[in-house]
Amino acid sequence: MVTNHQVLFNKVQPTGMPKPGETTTRGTSELDLSSVPLNGGVITRNIAVSLDPTMRNRMKGDIGYFTPPYVVGKPVTAIGIGEIVRSEAEGFAAGDIVYAWSTGIEEYTIHPAAAVPTFRKFDSEQLSNGLSITTYLGAAGMAGMTAYMSLKEIVGDLKPGNKMFVSGAAGAVGQLVVQLCHQAGVKVIASAGTDEKCDFVRSLGADESINYKTEDLPAKLKAFAGETGIHYYFDNVGGDQLEAYISVAARYGIIVACGYISGYNADKPEDVVYPKNLFNIVTKEIKYQGFIVSSFIPKWIGQFMQEVPKMLAEGKIKNREDVTFGVYGAEDAFLRLFTGENNGKVAVLIDTERAEKWNLKDQMVKSKVWK
Amino acid sequence: MVTNHQVLFNKVQPTGMPKPGETTTRGTSELDLSSVPLNGGVITRNIAVSLDPTMRNRMKGDIGYFTPPYVVGKPVTAIGIGEIVRSEAEGFAAGDIVYAWSTGIEEYTIHPAAAVPTFRKFDSEQLSNGLSITTYLGAAGMAGMTAYMSLKEIVGDLKPGNKMFVSGAAGAVGQLVVQLCHQAGVKVIASAGTDEKCDFVRSLGADESINYKTEDLPAKLKAFAGETGIHYYFDNVGGDQLEAYISVAARYGIIVACGYISGYNADKPEDVVYPKNLFNIVTKEIKYQGFIVSSFIPKWIGQFMQEVPKMLAEGKIKNREDVTFGVYGAEDAFLRLFTGENNGKVAVLIDTERAEKWNLKDQMVKSKVWK
Repeated sequence: MVTNHQVLFNKVQPTGMPKPGETTTRGTSELDLSSVPLNGGVITRNIAVSLDPTMRNRMKGDIGYFTPPYVVGKPVTAIGIGEIVRSEAEGFAAGDIVYAWSTGIEEYTIHPAAAVPTFRKFDSEQLSNGLSITTYLGAAGMAGMTAYMSLKEIVGDLKPGNKMFVSGAAGAVGQLVVQLCHQAGVKVIASAGTDEKCDFVRSLGADESINYKTEDLPAKLKAFAGETGIHYYFDNVGGDQLEAYISVAARYGIIVACGYISGYNADKPEDVVYPKNLFNIVTKEIKYQGFIVSSFIPKWIGQFMQEVPKMLAEGKIKNREDVTFGVYGAEDAFLRLFTGENNGKVAVLIDTERAEKWNLKDQMVKSKVWK
Repeated sequence: MVTNHQVLFNKVQPTGMPKPGETTTRGTSELDLSSVPLNGGVITRNIAVSLDPTMRNRMKGDIGYFTPPYVVGKPVTAIGIGEIVRSEAEGFAAGDIVYAWSTGIEEYTIHPAAAVPTFRKFDSEQLSNGLSITTYLGAAGMAGMTAYMSLKEIVGDLKPGNKMFVSGAAGAVGQLVVQLCHQAGVKVIASAGTDEKCDFVRSLGADESINYKTEDLPAKLKAFAGETGIHYYFDNVGGDQLEAYISVAARYGIIVACGYISGYNADKPEDVVYPKNLFNIVTKEIKYQGFIVSSFIPKWIGQFMQEVPKMLAEGKIKNREDVTFGVYGAEDAFLRLFTGENNGKVAVLIDTERAEKWNLKDQMVKSKVWK
């Protein structure tokens, strides 16, 4: 028998910040790894999970979100990487390292048979190129895919000399967008919530940065727009920043609508800011298009996996991670996503005993909250 | 010398309905057709002009609109058709009937040399197929092109069995959209502002109609959406109806953003309604794209002119027009666009003396306001 340490969903919370100990809580269960029934599925020893803003929307009860709400008393689930301990599924064996869309924030997860076909197995090259395992949850994982595929799918060819505004630019997705655009010769202005993050996004290649908490964002955008307007906007946040972009958009401007984090934790629905200049969508012939990466993975995954992990391994793309060690640390780490205290892609290393094997070093530890 | 009866722009009016006699006023000028200097341009005897909601935005002063504001004391301009009286421009001669983007609402307009290359000349087939000349301002003109080209460009292939919501469906553009979608096998729900207009759009092939002034639009849309959601929205109005669509949009819904008429005449900017559910743009991966027909005319005009006038002449597409006889009638006709008293495409026949030649009959006269 092993003790499975878990972060459980504890209380539906439609508004406000997630509260460790209230929205989620710590728990344990006892598990016999060799005999627990799998019913055609697999059991994984979890290595790491990704924490993403979108998870906040699954804590609001049934709001008609595209992923189902979390269930009170059950582990919060996230995109994760695990090592198969035992398998009843064809093609998967003990020892395989797999990427699984719905991993519990816990040390061991039983995956039903129906989930297994959506797993992606790691090959030895991916495990030996020096990247931390959590990179596959960030720049080489869903966040990277989101940046890469949404640019391919919605913007198409990035035109050198064109201008791009990226909000949430120090976040998991934003930092990749800044770099991909910069490398394509696009001029980038990027917003973030601290001066340190602004320095960081400029170090990635952003031509200018805006601390949206202390600087006049519309004025800086307007100056950057100049005569041409700003051609692209990668929108992670919605609200005021979306409105400010629409005002300075170039004719045929393109908005990649990737998130609306400014609205996720509002205390009241009326606190969420919506742009009051949508008429410009018509007059400037703007394309404003939503994107969820799962829709386009089949189309782009091959090209992505060929290009991006290699660029990361060679240092051609930088990737800042904010990795918490220990399963229970997920509660605080998730909150930090919304307070903005995180630095880059937020992930949790669950398999702390083998941190070295997963290329994770102490300097990445943001907060030590061991089980 | 002739007396040129004109509708002049009289007063910048940022908010509220346009006011005949105040926003615009009636005037005359004296003109010697044979000697007035043309400086390489042409002078037209105007046959008819199109009145479009978009003109309202040019009466607001310099709001950064994509077409320039009207100038106080000068004629209001519109898309029009005229007969060339005298020409100094190569390729154009007296007697040519031309389609001109910027025709004064007046009996004679002097077009500068720079404007002439944008003229389109009518051929004899177009003038002898039995269509009224004003059809070339509506279903076979800009309104028709807007409907046809925006569907081609933004939606692409209309998928039989998919669902479409059209707002402003009895208007110049809307009535074409309803028919093109119906003919492609798309199920159509259409909104309009009177029961009579609702009957009309159903007669064009709409499966269902909504009188947005008297019926519960969100509830009817929701019922129509059923399990599948509504795949397309052709948006002429913005505001509440846009919000209602976003709520019932199918995954990958497409919004053709053609106008925002609900906001054009607001008394105060804060009276304009903006949707409070844009987060669904992300989660449903909606594409919301603005469209101005002039951007796509070069690409689609050939195909359009081959298909649409023929369909109209053969009665395969219906086209309801609201034609006012007499240049001064333009003031009231323009107001009717916004009160919703118009019935179909609003145009003004200026050359009333030759009404028969232009295939215009008395039953089309909405209000007789002769010069």
